[in-house]
Amino acid sequence: MTSLNNCLSAIGVAMNEELTRLLPIASGPESRLQEAMRYSTLDGGKRLRPFFVLQTAQLFNVAEQSALRVAAAIELVHCYSLVHDDLPAMDDDDLRRGRPTCHKAFDEATAILAGDALLTKAFEVLAAPPTHSDPRVRADLVLALAEAAGDHGMVGGQMVDLRAAELEMDVAAVTRLQNLKTGCLFNFSCEAGAILGKAPAKLRQALRAYAHDVGLAFQIADDILDVEGDPDQVGKGLRKDAEAGKATFVSLLGIERARSQADMLWRQAAGHLDVFDEKADLLREAARFIVERKL
Amino acid sequence: MTSLNNCLSAIGVAMNEELTRLLPIASGPESRLQEAMRYSTLDGGKRLRPFFVLQTAQLFNVAEQSALRVAAAIELVHCYSLVHDDLPAMDDDDLRRGRPTCHKAFDEATAILAGDALLTKAFEVLAAPPTHSDPRVRADLVLALAEAAGDHGMVGGQMVDLRAAELEMDVAAVTRLQNLKTGCLFNFSCEAGAILGKAPAKLRQALRAYAHDVGLAFQIADDILDVEGDPDQVGKGLRKDAEAGKATFVSLLGIERARSQADMLWRQAAGHLDVFDEKADLLREAARFIVERKL
Repeated sequence: MTSLNNCLSAIGVAMNEELTRLLPIASGPESRLQEAMRYSTLDGGKRLRPFFVLQTAQLFNVAEQSALRVAAAIELVHCYSLVHDDLPAMDDDDLRRGRPTCHKAFDEATAILAGDALLTKAFEVLAAPPTHSDPRVRADLVLALAEAAGDHGMVGGQMVDLRAAELEMDVAAVTRLQNLKTGCLFNFSCEAGAILGKAPAKLRQALRAYAHDVGLAFQIADDILDVEGDPDQVGKGLRKDAEAGKATFVSLLGIERARSQADMLWRQAAGHLDVFDEKADLLREAARFIVERKL
Repeated sequence: MTSLNNCLSAIGVAMNEELTRLLPIASGPESRLQEAMRYSTLDGGKRLRPFFVLQTAQLFNVAEQSALRVAAAIELVHCYSLVHDDLPAMDDDDLRRGRPTCHKAFDEATAILAGDALLTKAFEVLAAPPTHSDPRVRADLVLALAEAAGDHGMVGGQMVDLRAAELEMDVAAVTRLQNLKTGCLFNFSCEAGAILGKAPAKLRQALRAYAHDVGLAFQIADDILDVEGDPDQVGKGLRKDAEAGKATFVSLLGIERARSQADMLWRQAAGHLDVFDEKADLLREAARFIVERKL
């Protein structure tokens, strides 16, 4: 795991640099908004989605600047979704990554606007010429991210999640929910490298299959952590799903079957990468890490 | 004014058709979100921004489908901004266009997500191939809209507006605020036709100048309406700025000077269109209409 850990640390540093560059602070009173945007994106998170972008881009020898910008764009979307999810009207969370959530550190209105601006910035970054010399690639990236993040993707999943307590949800329904809520953005993160590298359909398909299994494994692991994790270590409130009466993989399958399902999924995910050589080793390792992580 | 009124009515119908097409409703529980998206965009508003897109596109003989899609994308952004602005943590409005605001008709969480999804959809529409055969045009549209709508544009203006009561604002500061909050999106609406039509720089510049003056005239007229308008006719709460202790063009200039300023601006705006022939007549008329409207 050392090489994966080293890689994730390096990506953490690179992301902070890139995001700082992409989030300048104006001299007017709107600087408060931009402070909130930085607060919600810098120094936080595992940077898993950027990791997927950067690693899949490397498979196709994509220029580092391109990959970094796309990685930053996805992280902007991920962070905006957390800012809005944490709002009182949504999950009402006070703590995120061990710090006050955006609306606690600033205020609710600023948090709503910061989320809006982060989402907008993501598309600005993707569409700008420095991201790729070929405008078709830039337009394709925007389209794919918008589809993954919108009402037929991540935001749709959020809506289903909010209604989850009132719905009768079986494993199929929870799987669909998680595919929308988390999977779509994971898929885009892994496909982004292929889009940037204009990869052949077969390799793109392999990455999509990998992302699908990894995304589901991630979510099952999250449900297990929600029951077994140490709140101090995880850095956010736990056991909220159970308290809210929402079905989870753990509540539906039991912890042992959930664990063996996650185990099967990461192995299957790694298997999809057989078409790639040792350049994909860190992606293989990451599949396992995602299931075995403690935070 | 009849030809302008006819044109605006026709655009209203066309926009509802286009937006309905662009906002399909899924069969899953996320359909609630999509109902809220339609609720917040269909059958409402003056459709001024779509009017600008469609009219400027006509100057360069842009295909109607392209112009309609871009017009719809801007309207999606405009409507998302209204949904979020109306939230309790922001302006806390119950009424919009004579109907309950989105969070009143649905709930706060759904309104937050509906806004997010509308914004995302706008970029999806712009980036998709049916919008223009040239991917560079699509990427340019995404970039220009993101810049206009983000923290250095519309959302930045919202942030300043929220802080307006606590700031000492003179005419220059209020003008800057309104340029951010309203002007940026007006500018993009007028430039979109030029981007779609790959217009020469000189004509693009003329449209930018027109948009700038029209946007400011619009805002001054809005401030006048806020004081003099009939709430039943305008269809939203009035006199909120004064109650909140915010500086407006009317509070700073007085109503007479504000009126003559708006009058000067629409004439100046129309003047920027001298480089165009009679194809720009409706744009000229619109500048006047914006100042003289009663809602």
